[in-house]
Amino acid sequence: MNGAESLVRTLIAGGVDTCFANPGTSEMHFVAALDRVGGMRCVLSLFEGVVSGAADGYGRMADKPAATLLHLGPGLGNALANLHNARKANTPIVNIVGEHATHHRQYDAPLTADVEGVARPMSGWVKTSMDARSVAGDGAEAITAALTSPGQIATLILPADTAWNLADGPAPVAKAPDRSKVSDSAVLEAVEALRSGEPVLLLVGGRALRANPLKIASAIGQATGAHLIAPTSNGRVERGAGRSPVSRIFYPIKQALTQLERYRHVILVGAKTPVAFFAYPDTPSLVMPEGCAEHVLAEPQDDIEDALTRLAEAVKAPLGGAVIQQAGRPSLPTGAITPDTVGAVIGALLPENAIIVDEAINSAGTTYAQTAGCPPHDWLALTGGSIGIGLPMATGAAVACPDRRVVALQADGSGMYTLQALWTHARENLNITTIIFANNAYQSLDIELRNVGALNPGRIALDMLDIGRPDLDWVKLAEGMGVEAARADTLEELIDLFKASLARPGPFLIQVPI
Amino acid sequence: MNGAESLVRTLIAGGVDTCFANPGTSEMHFVAALDRVGGMRCVLSLFEGVVSGAADGYGRMADKPAATLLHLGPGLGNALANLHNARKANTPIVNIVGEHATHHRQYDAPLTADVEGVARPMSGWVKTSMDARSVAGDGAEAITAALTSPGQIATLILPADTAWNLADGPAPVAKAPDRSKVSDSAVLEAVEALRSGEPVLLLVGGRALRANPLKIASAIGQATGAHLIAPTSNGRVERGAGRSPVSRIFYPIKQALTQLERYRHVILVGAKTPVAFFAYPDTPSLVMPEGCAEHVLAEPQDDIEDALTRLAEAVKAPLGGAVIQQAGRPSLPTGAITPDTVGAVIGALLPENAIIVDEAINSAGTTYAQTAGCPPHDWLALTGGSIGIGLPMATGAAVACPDRRVVALQADGSGMYTLQALWTHARENLNITTIIFANNAYQSLDIELRNVGALNPGRIALDMLDIGRPDLDWVKLAEGMGVEAARADTLEELIDLFKASLARPGPFLIQVPI
Repeated sequence: MNGAESLVRTLIAGGVDTCFANPGTSEMHFVAALDRVGGMRCVLSLFEGVVSGAADGYGRMADKPAATLLHLGPGLGNALANLHNARKANTPIVNIVGEHATHHRQYDAPLTADVEGVARPMSGWVKTSMDARSVAGDGAEAITAALTSPGQIATLILPADTAWNLADGPAPVAKAPDRSKVSDSAVLEAVEALRSGEPVLLLVGGRALRANPLKIASAIGQATGAHLIAPTSNGRVERGAGRSPVSRIFYPIKQALTQLERYRHVILVGAKTPVAFFAYPDTPSLVMPEGCAEHVLAEPQDDIEDALTRLAEAVKAPLGGAVIQQAGRPSLPTGAITPDTVGAVIGALLPENAIIVDEAINSAGTTYAQTAGCPPHDWLALTGGSIGIGLPMATGAAVACPDRRVVALQADGSGMYTLQALWTHARENLNITTIIFANNAYQSLDIELRNVGALNPGRIALDMLDIGRPDLDWVKLAEGMGVEAARADTLEELIDLFKASLARPGPFLIQVPI
Repeated sequence: MNGAESLVRTLIAGGVDTCFANPGTSEMHFVAALDRVGGMRCVLSLFEGVVSGAADGYGRMADKPAATLLHLGPGLGNALANLHNARKANTPIVNIVGEHATHHRQYDAPLTADVEGVARPMSGWVKTSMDARSVAGDGAEAITAALTSPGQIATLILPADTAWNLADGPAPVAKAPDRSKVSDSAVLEAVEALRSGEPVLLLVGGRALRANPLKIASAIGQATGAHLIAPTSNGRVERGAGRSPVSRIFYPIKQALTQLERYRHVILVGAKTPVAFFAYPDTPSLVMPEGCAEHVLAEPQDDIEDALTRLAEAVKAPLGGAVIQQAGRPSLPTGAITPDTVGAVIGALLPENAIIVDEAINSAGTTYAQTAGCPPHDWLALTGGSIGIGLPMATGAAVACPDRRVVALQADGSGMYTLQALWTHARENLNITTIIFANNAYQSLDIELRNVGALNPGRIALDMLDIGRPDLDWVKLAEGMGVEAARADTLEELIDLFKASLARPGPFLIQVPI
């Protein structure tokens, strides 16, 4: 067997059985090996940003890495933006990047580039295989690296001759180290903060946002008076009726400062020190007030549920004391289409076990609040601020969870970065309902331009924010890639289209003018 | 004036008056400054790969850099693939990349990344401005770096506070060093090769492919019996009736080996040592035969026209001896649509002064040959092998040359990487006729899969090559972005549509099933 086949067998034996691919010439031995080895689901995308964003969505939902298959430095370059988002979500991913044969790398061929250099900024682990017999072992190491808590991006670069030359066979995959238990002193420090009598914030992030740890954290909050808040953007929140609810730090820095100004202690539980999304001349970078003491109960890579359990015991917070979200939905709204009424439609109709992929940006409105009492569901958000992950992330989530409906809330400007994902929605007949919030603008930038003091922006500046002229017709764009689509000009049309899409398998796109 | 304005003024004074932009929050001060300072044409794109590909097309045609405006590490990441192509074409580009404020970079904000790390693999010059008063000088340095022969990519990273803080004003731009003259011994060595009586190849690349140096090279060939060939892919070839013709090294390695096996000497004139696009187990990396002596007359950065002029004098090759392409076009074809008959349509109808952007890949057919006797035109090709530059490069070429018709020959698979360029075609009403060769496949990969020995590929492998199922409807995709489009199912329809598009301003797209 050649190196490529030894890698495919290693991946499958190591539990990596899904590959998002945009291969090129140097990856053809890997592709050829897929036919000889059963068990790898291979999903083609027409752009590498779809590949990496799908791998992120898959990893968040499957809690294990997908492989990607990418073509040399430029192919990896196209994947970087969504790898950046995945990195911020601590999503495990194994990138397989083809490279020129080892003896060909010395020449300046057209596709020659510094592949490791491209990989490094967004990868936690990078390795170039040096010969065919090393490929399986390197692949095994990549899987272990990807799964090392809290999850990271492992990039394995595969010179073509290491794929085509003879190898020994697959390599065993070492188990990733267990999540480390936090120290007793970390628990004790949190206990002391909770007993200080001063206002305490429990900032819960990462794995603390799964249903069970969130319930324990809620119980701690109820027993001690501490408040529970999550960062603005989170990789995955398990929420809905029967689970413990959690609010989020506001995105606008001034609102966030007001929201958090009361706290004298912040206990970090799988979350990092909260910082402003951007700096501004007149606002601080850190959003917790000056003089607020920071206590780290658990880092993102720690055993967060264990830490919370021990803290709950120490402060005598029985699980039964947790706040439990009651079931409840908004009524179907009437009136005009606004971000809030669209949110009410989603809240009124969201099916059980849905996965919401949130890249609605300025059109998010109150959807998070209006879905709080819906049947249990997952909420996946943009973690790295690099817009263009919504449609790809929906792809990966739907591949990971074929029995669940994915609802993608997609701003139009962001959606255009990786619209090619729609073709994969169609090809794989994925159960994804996409709602495009079509405001024909980079509305964030309009807000930011005014934030920087350009109160009367001129034509040139405004042209950089306006993505109308021509307006985008998302129905045609979707149909051009094989996804059925329609435009909802009234709330009634939106309700009918959304209901219809939930009642049938496969993808559907609804363009909503906002 | 703030740092951003000092930079905009420096760019304009330095001749950089066109900016391809996909800005974000951290670039808003730059955008706001554009309104206060006249003279910068700002062209918005909906994806950064369009920005960088357009800057490449612009730089190739304008012989000076455009600026790009990109948003932090991920935005630059999205631009990398086409920066890679531009780098291989030695195109001058000044990238302006926004970054977090200097005091904010220490925090792990969502968009925090190693921007310099992302920039380095594809840039010849990288700098992060450290304060507002340095921005203008750094920008001036970037322009000089971009224009330093043979042209390179200069990336200036601009922390937000260096844009918003007070600056002193614009900085003067130093002239780039002159192209260096080649040594007399380099000329002498070429003379000796040409007089050896053995078969000699003049490999002409880069600036040698402009009309005048090509004519001198042709005269040298005629006077000495040496053959004139260009590399497979070239940034820009000036060709057509009245100019000296040049053929190219074949892309398939086995054909290239046969094409070049006769030569005992290769004289490099602005070209690099020719190497195979990819390595294969059974073929060499170097395409010149073993024992062929290599002589460097001029490196890409040298004064190539001067070197050729001196060589022509030394071998007594009067300019009047050059081969001159006679005017002549193929007849309008009849029969089936094939790459060759489409090429004949283009050859029969190509307007004077057209710019052909060639990303037709496997559908290129004989178009290069069939346009040889057309009125003078430029031919821009994919130089770095990273597909997805055609539609963006057409954008930049059309912005640089508003009075010329751009004809983009675009394979469908490649076109999908950066289809967002069509929106910019529409918004700027660019004179671009796009012909989509729709074979619904990554046909290159089908060939390559068989090359690697998978003679009977199975379903999984074939699925990775087949981009039909669903078929892409480029008419809808174009219309969705505001570009008028039609499908040509017969040669007659293609002829009518192509003629019509040439007769009116603005963009048009023709989908041709191949």
